[in-house]
Amino acid sequence: MSLTKKDFLGLYNSSAAEIEEILNTAVAMKDVLTRSVKKVPTLRGKTVINLFFEPSTRTRFSFNLAAKRLSADVMNINKSASSIVKGESLLDTARTMEVMGADVVVIRHSAAGAAQFLAKNIRASVLNAGDGAHAHPTQALLDMYTIREKLGKIEGVKVLIIGDIAHSRVARSNIWGLKKLGAKVSVAGPQTLIPLEIEKMGVKVYTDLDQALQETDVVNILRIQLERQEAGLFPSLREYREIYGMNEKRLDKIGKKALVMHPGPMNRGIEIESSVADSQQSVITEQVRNGVAIRMALLYLLAGREANNEQIN
Amino acid sequence: MSLTKKDFLGLYNSSAAEIEEILNTAVAMKDVLTRSVKKVPTLRGKTVINLFFEPSTRTRFSFNLAAKRLSADVMNINKSASSIVKGESLLDTARTMEVMGADVVVIRHSAAGAAQFLAKNIRASVLNAGDGAHAHPTQALLDMYTIREKLGKIEGVKVLIIGDIAHSRVARSNIWGLKKLGAKVSVAGPQTLIPLEIEKMGVKVYTDLDQALQETDVVNILRIQLERQEAGLFPSLREYREIYGMNEKRLDKIGKKALVMHPGPMNRGIEIESSVADSQQSVITEQVRNGVAIRMALLYLLAGREANNEQIN
Amino acid sequence: MSLTKKDFLGLYNSSAAEIEEILNTAVAMKDVLTRSVKKVPTLRGKTVINLFFEPSTRTRFSFNLAAKRLSADVMNINKSASSIVKGESLLDTARTMEVMGADVVVIRHSAAGAAQFLAKNIRASVLNAGDGAHAHPTQALLDMYTIREKLGKIEGVKVLIIGDIAHSRVARSNIWGLKKLGAKVSVAGPQTLIPLEIEKMGVKVYTDLDQALQETDVVNILRIQLERQEAGLFPSLREYREIYGMNEKRLDKIGKKALVMHPGPMNRGIEIESSVADSQQSVITEQVRNGVAIRMALLYLLAGREANNEQIN
Repeated sequence: MSLTKKDFLGLYNSSAAEIEEILNTAVAMKDVLTRSVKKVPTLRGKTVINLFFEPSTRTRFSFNLAAKRLSADVMNINKSASSIVKGESLLDTARTMEVMGADVVVIRHSAAGAAQFLAKNIRASVLNAGDGAHAHPTQALLDMYTIREKLGKIEGVKVLIIGDIAHSRVARSNIWGLKKLGAKVSVAGPQTLIPLEIEKMGVKVYTDLDQALQETDVVNILRIQLERQEAGLFPSLREYREIYGMNEKRLDKIGKKALVMHPGPMNRGIEIESSVADSQQSVITEQVRNGVAIRMALLYLLAGREANNEQIN
Repeated sequence: MSLTKKDFLGLYNSSAAEIEEILNTAVAMKDVLTRSVKKVPTLRGKTVINLFFEPSTRTRFSFNLAAKRLSADVMNINKSASSIVKGESLLDTARTMEVMGADVVVIRHSAAGAAQFLAKNIRASVLNAGDGAHAHPTQALLDMYTIREKLGKIEGVKVLIIGDIAHSRVARSNIWGLKKLGAKVSVAGPQTLIPLEIEKMGVKVYTDLDQALQETDVVNILRIQLERQEAGLFPSLREYREIYGMNEKRLDKIGKKALVMHPGPMNRGIEIESSVADSQQSVITEQVRNGVAIRMALLYLLAGREANNEQIN
Repeated sequence: MSLTKKDFLGLYNSSAAEIEEILNTAVAMKDVLTRSVKKVPTLRGKTVINLFFEPSTRTRFSFNLAAKRLSADVMNINKSASSIVKGESLLDTARTMEVMGADVVVIRHSAAGAAQFLAKNIRASVLNAGDGAHAHPTQALLDMYTIREKLGKIEGVKVLIIGDIAHSRVARSNIWGLKKLGAKVSVAGPQTLIPLEIEKMGVKVYTDLDQALQETDVVNILRIQLERQEAGLFPSLREYREIYGMNEKRLDKIGKKALVMHPGPMNRGIEIESSVADSQQSVITEQVRNGVAIRMALLYLLAGREANNEQIN
């Protein structure tokens, strides 16, 4: 394996070759998931710590399962249970885990840069499972994996991301990753929620959603943060649904081969109608499945560094 | 194995033959629990999800242990930790788990019918660990297992259930199961807490507890819901203890071979005195042990469906 | 193995020979932790329950990892999740676990004597992970292990414990253990927080910290309970730091070969400065690592009782 970095912090500092390696490794991992005994001994005796400072069922669950499929030992530390309540610093907590024998620390934190901070200060591998509005690279990788699997390639593929771009770590990580592999990325959403700098990243900004839909191969629909809506910062939920919600009428505007994606959990009836979520073109379920494969690939590439001779068998 | 159904939702829709098969499988499982290495590789690579929307230590613990004894991977999702807090539907949550690779979803939910709803909508096996006041079939099965083990049979055995019958899923599941295997079931408790329809189910209703005690082989004492009591809906706790509490005087009225059962956790000094709970006739401890065997049997029968060639060894 | 007791409750009732046996077993366990596959099958099929009635990340995490390294199945029960909320007694909870198949119950409880109470009443082994202000024996053992490893012996070594001695189970357990193995123990701290009886235990009480520092081989710095401080019961945090905080100036007063210890989690900038915590003389990180080895040793000695023929391999 050639992923020579100690940590995986985000797609913003991964090369195209590294991203390709992760995606290719995930293909082998997905194969494991289709077997009758969905388990390989590859990481036996390795320890993965899920250190989650934000609530998350899906991502934590997916990492858990990925680690177990590889026969690693997994332990979960959630914010409330943590000795952070006793005033210990994030760094002392992470060092404690490292010293006790953690091989990989999977961290989710509300502060952008938390993963990077840890990575600099501990010897164990750090895997970014989402930091603030900054990055959510495993989500972007599973999105990219799904596009490549369904459309055969990423280069030249047109991807439209719809929603609150400004606050979305999913959008940000997708843009970084997709651009590196040569996709054409565009965004659409309420004007106040599209950062000005985004065009400098080579992203096309659509103000007319109907036009955007006609020119894309993939629609990636972001989750609306209900909390933010309730604070009245936004067009109302009803307005959002009207203007940006993906419904059957809008589905007709994209090509029949175009993919519908959503990182989940969905607000059915707001940013996406059930008829769209459950349509033939939806690959939302497949995204979830691919997420386990991507996380297995990353755990393997990081924790398997000193165990290069071991085979996935 | 001949349990051909995908799910196990309750005894109300199990045949007598199916119930017998579960009980017989549990005998083999109980044997595993007596070994020095209490573990078999039967479900290696299978994944069991405990999806609990109501707090429960015992049942969750028992399912956890059962899965581990069979070498399955187990993951727990409790309500507070779940993305249900983000507004995701029960169904999307369950589908996510299925897609990630869950073979069996064990669900406890406060809404009657939740397990059935899931079962219709996901491909993974669903195992009902208690839904509202509707059913708690694994508790009933372990009760039946204990009766059969101690008295040699279920057919013709007289079982008296004491307490709040109306709100008890334990009572309901016991009645369904016991009747199917030919037991004679009767109930006793405050009149307001005995549903009128119960006699139509072939259950005898006693108003005189002393008479009821003289005519039974098994006393199954339900837990009093202290919450309900505190709301003042009831005879007071003191009155309940006086009129329906199982004490030594009442213990004398049942035969010396009759069994004392309780699903736990007990309110010692309310529905049952410690001298009764710890008496020779009490099989309460054995019920707990048998619960692990029953849950192993069900997990095996459901998750082992595609792996029929594997032996318990 | 000759640790013939069913339980491990504290160093107050362990003989010097028993303590030596635990420390020697931990040497073999620490060797396992340095391997590439950090895992042995020694306790396969055994079940360890972490029953924690007080929040704790470190100790629980350490026990978890220790059990997994030995291939035992581990289950966690935390207070909030427990059916104690349903009013079940501690004893019924523990008996339930025992009956379900727990081989070792690791208990942390705010009441002094909780572990002893359980040990008397269940057949499973009980391991005290901290009970009230009474004992925290695994912490003391890992402290002793670290001293022996770094200084080559415990007998005759001078250990100074600094802080709130009166409320510290860490101090208490260290005193019991160290005295049994022949160390010379002294304490320093605010006068109101040094119990009068301590001199009767053969412990020297220093009122002059500077003098104490000049006469010791090991400084063990206790964590300040911020909660207690906030209640105003104390010298203020600022005063404490001034008078008892371990800073570079005080570090200069102890010999260059003397060890700096802290049970963690640290309040950096209060009882210990970062420059001291991260200094060459600090063995705080090593304490954490040794904690896993000590807990592996205890789990092995307790749960391996009936499996004496199995080797650590």
